[in-house]
Amino acid sequence: MNASESFSGSNVLITGGLGFIGSNLARELVARGAHVTLVDSLIPEYGGNLFNIDDIEGHIRVNISDVRDEYSFRHLIQGQDYLFNLAGQTSHLDSMENPYSDLEINCRAQLSILEVCRRYQPNIKIVFASTRQIYGKPDYLPVDEKHLLRPVDVNGINKMAGEWYHILYNNVYDIRSCALRLTNTYGPRMRIKDARQTFLGVWIRLLAEGKPFDVWEGHQLRDFSFVSDVVDAMLLAAVREEANGQVFNLGGEPAISLKDLAELLVKVAAGGSYVLRSFPGERKRIDIGDYYANFEKIRTTLGWEPRVTLEQGLHRTVEFYRHHLHHYL
Amino acid sequence: MNASESFSGSNVLITGGLGFIGSNLARELVARGAHVTLVDSLIPEYGGNLFNIDDIEGHIRVNISDVRDEYSFRHLIQGQDYLFNLAGQTSHLDSMENPYSDLEINCRAQLSILEVCRRYQPNIKIVFASTRQIYGKPDYLPVDEKHLLRPVDVNGINKMAGEWYHILYNNVYDIRSCALRLTNTYGPRMRIKDARQTFLGVWIRLLAEGKPFDVWEGHQLRDFSFVSDVVDAMLLAAVREEANGQVFNLGGEPAISLKDLAELLVKVAAGGSYVLRSFPGERKRIDIGDYYANFEKIRTTLGWEPRVTLEQGLHRTVEFYRHHLHHYL
Repeated sequence: MNASESFSGSNVLITGGLGFIGSNLARELVARGAHVTLVDSLIPEYGGNLFNIDDIEGHIRVNISDVRDEYSFRHLIQGQDYLFNLAGQTSHLDSMENPYSDLEINCRAQLSILEVCRRYQPNIKIVFASTRQIYGKPDYLPVDEKHLLRPVDVNGINKMAGEWYHILYNNVYDIRSCALRLTNTYGPRMRIKDARQTFLGVWIRLLAEGKPFDVWEGHQLRDFSFVSDVVDAMLLAAVREEANGQVFNLGGEPAISLKDLAELLVKVAAGGSYVLRSFPGERKRIDIGDYYANFEKIRTTLGWEPRVTLEQGLHRTVEFYRHHLHHYL
Repeated sequence: MNASESFSGSNVLITGGLGFIGSNLARELVARGAHVTLVDSLIPEYGGNLFNIDDIEGHIRVNISDVRDEYSFRHLIQGQDYLFNLAGQTSHLDSMENPYSDLEINCRAQLSILEVCRRYQPNIKIVFASTRQIYGKPDYLPVDEKHLLRPVDVNGINKMAGEWYHILYNNVYDIRSCALRLTNTYGPRMRIKDARQTFLGVWIRLLAEGKPFDVWEGHQLRDFSFVSDVVDAMLLAAVREEANGQVFNLGGEPAISLKDLAELLVKVAAGGSYVLRSFPGERKRIDIGDYYANFEKIRTTLGWEPRVTLEQGLHRTVEFYRHHLHHYL
């Protein structure tokens, strides 16, 4: 990618920087010579983990604070060239149980981040981590960016609003922003304690612990992005002006059923087992059935496409957690 | 309409009840024998006006409180059969200047209203007043409910979220809710002090004061709903189970250019004049061009259609403000 030299010497802020994607992004930016500041609240239920930056700790600045804290953010944003805005509440169940927390983080804090940028650092470029979750149950497959947004949980509604604040501030105030609608992202440093980030985390934890993992239903098709591919997309979106004001789907090929994914995981890991289960009624109501993305727009506009196959990605992930499991429990 | 007898003896709460649409709705519900409670904060910049209920004051209960006040709402909701949820910040410019207030009212308070209903009055039926504003600049005309939502201001984003909370609580928790996407509503009791509710209010005030009014650009097509038609739609949506979980466009026929509307208004009022002006640059950026709705969905599903022509509606409106102007300045 031709974004490779663009970050040398630039100042970069990453919200949610101790989390799964944020820390992988930080590692790549450090390698490219950027001055990286991570903001993270280390809320225990979220993805932040100090071990995620164990190998780059001396090369970055870490600031423990919450994106709801407008004053600290006002200080931190000054002088930054890029903001990768990744902090968020990601759990769908938590968003239903604590809808106000979800609103404060995914909705109100996003507005306040943009207001602070507008007032104190208007030349910044922002890449926002949105989610395919906001589409809800697809009308057609693969889902492109013209698909209606019909979120099926509080999290989806607030993420939808958060995404649109970014597009609005780009369009009205020229705060250059774009949003990537991430599909199921996986890889080293994802949260595996529970399913708050992705069910795949739980599978891999149980596999590493030598226990069978549960596969719900099994027939649903999904697509997956390995984290390094997501990092590529974020860096491209950051440096390319064509991205401004745009939303882009990320996606992975091929779409795969959860049962086939479980099979592939067991094969890659050379061991382990799973149990097929049916959804409880409550869970079934917000199930979206099959989902996979059409990502032609980002392919055409920015030249992005996934480079890591699912088999390669699962292999690297399993290896990572075999070595580092105890840091993630 | 066959909703006519449904409200006799029923308990109805209207948020924003002292406002333009809320007070017209209250009057109709009183006529149908409902026990009506109005909730309104009387924030001076919003639409609440005690004169709006001057003739029905003895037949309703008025509670001055803010929808952000969760505890008072918790008390007020109990025992209610219907909630017409009309309270909102409507000004696009105010939403850009005070984005947090707009978020608190149009987004967070909506979530809290729904949470309170879920916990304390789960059998209630809710009709939410949404807006065509959330569509943004149309891709095609007339705009139907399959059109993407691309709000062009903070208000639009927050209204979009507020609408979706209602649909979500219907789908996940069976709190029966639906949303009407209102187009330009006009009629007696609208705010005319300024353009916060509709530009047409300002036109009619200036006309009544014998001053020329400004028509911005003039070529843009718009559709208009007379307030009694909107009230009809709300009552239908309230009593019909087919409405649950649905969003419906309202609309008016024919679409008319602002210049032709100005001509019609001057004709109906038998006097007055206007001045054509160009948008300032800032305003032009968020202009949406032409808009008019396809309202086949509500016509087909609920049998609603507008009954008051634009000429009739403008006539009634002009007459109302000729008699009552001083209560609205």
